[in-house]
Amino acid sequence: MVLEIKVPHGNDFTVLKPLIPVVVSYILSFIYIGIYWNNHHHMMHTVKHVTGGILWANLHLLFWLSLVPFVTGWIGENHFDPIPMALYGFILLMAAIAYFILRSLIISSQGENSLLARAVGNDIKGKISPILYLLAIASNFVSQWISGALYILVALIWLIPDKRIEIIIREEIETKHTKTRSKPS
Amino acid sequence: MVLEIKVPHGNDFTVLKPLIPVVVSYILSFIYIGIYWNNHHHMMHTVKHVTGGILWANLHLLFWLSLVPFVTGWIGENHFDPIPMALYGFILLMAAIAYFILRSLIISSQGENSLLARAVGNDIKGKISPILYLLAIASNFVSQWISGALYILVALIWLIPDKRIEIIIREEIETKHTKTRSKPS
Amino acid sequence: MVLEIKVPHGNDFTVLKPLIPVVVSYILSFIYIGIYWNNHHHMMHTVKHVTGGILWANLHLLFWLSLVPFVTGWIGENHFDPIPMALYGFILLMAAIAYFILRSLIISSQGENSLLARAVGNDIKGKISPILYLLAIASNFVSQWISGALYILVALIWLIPDKRIEIIIREEIETKHTKTRSKPS
Amino acid sequence: MVLEIKVPHGNDFTVLKPLIPVVVSYILSFIYIGIYWNNHHHMMHTVKHVTGGILWANLHLLFWLSLVPFVTGWIGENHFDPIPMALYGFILLMAAIAYFILRSLIISSQGENSLLARAVGNDIKGKISPILYLLAIASNFVSQWISGALYILVALIWLIPDKRIEIIIREEIETKHTKTRSKPS
Repeated sequence: MVLEIKVPHGNDFTVLKPLIPVVVSYILSFIYIGIYWNNHHHMMHTVKHVTGGILWANLHLLFWLSLVPFVTGWIGENHFDPIPMALYGFILLMAAIAYFILRSLIISSQGENSLLARAVGNDIKGKISPILYLLAIASNFVSQWISGALYILVALIWLIPDKRIEIIIREEIETKHTKTRSKPS
Repeated sequence: MVLEIKVPHGNDFTVLKPLIPVVVSYILSFIYIGIYWNNHHHMMHTVKHVTGGILWANLHLLFWLSLVPFVTGWIGENHFDPIPMALYGFILLMAAIAYFILRSLIISSQGENSLLARAVGNDIKGKISPILYLLAIASNFVSQWISGALYILVALIWLIPDKRIEIIIREEIETKHTKTRSKPS
Repeated sequence: MVLEIKVPHGNDFTVLKPLIPVVVSYILSFIYIGIYWNNHHHMMHTVKHVTGGILWANLHLLFWLSLVPFVTGWIGENHFDPIPMALYGFILLMAAIAYFILRSLIISSQGENSLLARAVGNDIKGKISPILYLLAIASNFVSQWISGALYILVALIWLIPDKRIEIIIREEIETKHTKTRSKPS
Repeated sequence: MVLEIKVPHGNDFTVLKPLIPVVVSYILSFIYIGIYWNNHHHMMHTVKHVTGGILWANLHLLFWLSLVPFVTGWIGENHFDPIPMALYGFILLMAAIAYFILRSLIISSQGENSLLARAVGNDIKGKISPILYLLAIASNFVSQWISGALYILVALIWLIPDKRIEIIIREEIETKHTKTRSKPS
């Protein structure tokens, strides 16, 4: 995580007050990057055959995520003004698309019956998120409160403990255990 | 570790003098983060069944720890003034609570007989720390010396080589060895 | 990745305009470092006998790559002026040479029949790159557009999914599987 | 690595000239940290029984190494003036002592016949380095050229490919292979 809050000059709570939008944007981006980090980590564990395409799709995702600290700093310093907020949404949208491309490449290379394909299922979360990002970017020019609420909504949707991840991990572990147990017999 | 000390202008010891509070706060935070890093690393090794809850409790802990460099810089720049010192204690308190939540979730998911549950035991250190943090935050408005002494005390309590960690690691290794040895028989 | 874009002051697209050269140099360096990171990661996996020489050749490569963020920032801040662009090319050239030395040492220590030696083959990409870097450094004093185009060309050459990497990884995995399968029999 | 060179303003070689001492100190510290990183990495691999003492000795070493970027920046900005150079030597001396403590703890916990104990042998390099650091700190107040030459000498002593490391790694790998081969029989 390269998110950063600059140390203020002064020694009381009044110098912290202008930091409030910085902290709010920090928390929001921390959750987003945490979600990607968790899901990405587990998705990469299901990969059995790495291809050049997967490597570049992975780099593409990292590129957009690497820009999150920059836009986070920009919306924090400008109190959620429309243009920075729109760029923030654009970077998140591109990261969501990059994640979708990476996942599709992994599934197509592993076969439709793979662990990941079954665990992802119809993937409502993945389909709703880009639409909500687009709505947030657009609504942002009407009111930043609607836009902000939509960004928080996407974060909350993903914060709900994801049964799919747990299923992937459990199957993974069980597969390993079965293999280990059956190996010497 | 993202703790940082800014390079001073000037080439003698006089320019290092104003850095003394910065270095003191640096050492204190280095020990705190080192303690968390060590304990966290070993606790995560005892996890056999990862759940969504554990993932988020882990992210929650990382969130508070990620704010330690910020408050460390703030107390260092303000020579341990009351408000920065209180915020420092608050962040450490929240990290201690986050750590407690993470550990409880891991123990409840692994069963009361798990390695971690036995190793933690009645956990005096974990119960005393939050109380000492609260005392440090309060006493800070009377005298920062009492508050500072309490922060150092918590660090010292945890610096005593922890027999529990060694027990966990030893049992871990022995379990692995036993498994390896008994596997092909 | 230590590439960084400074948060601008101001809240509209006009403050982003001066950032365009910064972003362009950021993207270019991101691709270069991504290419090295991917190839390096897989090359190191083929190493079976680590020697002191390999360790130092590895450190030598990391040294030049660690300077990429510095020259990236310099060309971005100076809108691709000739001298920064020449230094950029020089650092990339040295990194390419360091990579060549590392690879040669690995191949010579693993034997000509090793996985890496077969996968690398006649290595056209590795031989063309330094020549293109030299051309870019020289042409840069005539026109930065030619120089910039040559840097992008090298990046594109390496972006083409590399069949060699896939072959290495596939053979690696298959070798492991074969070992695992044949172990208990 | 957190070593950093600030991007200069200006677009020609004249702005790079004041960076020469910064780059020289950067290279020196890069080699030092690279040496520690390589040796530390391999030493930790020989540890079979982790104790609380080893964990804290490790943290102690990391503490001194974490200060290297700070003193590197200070000597670079002050063109190797005596006081910064003395502090640089002091940090390197403390890191060398911390490394010695860590190694002693590991050897005493693994037994005198351990891989590490045999590989380290009489350890001439480890004994000469602290003496050379002390000489460098003292000579520094006579002439920084002598001091600088001594720092470079220590780096060169360690840069000579270390047969001991290669021996450790080779024995490690062979032990593993033997274990793997003999396991199912």
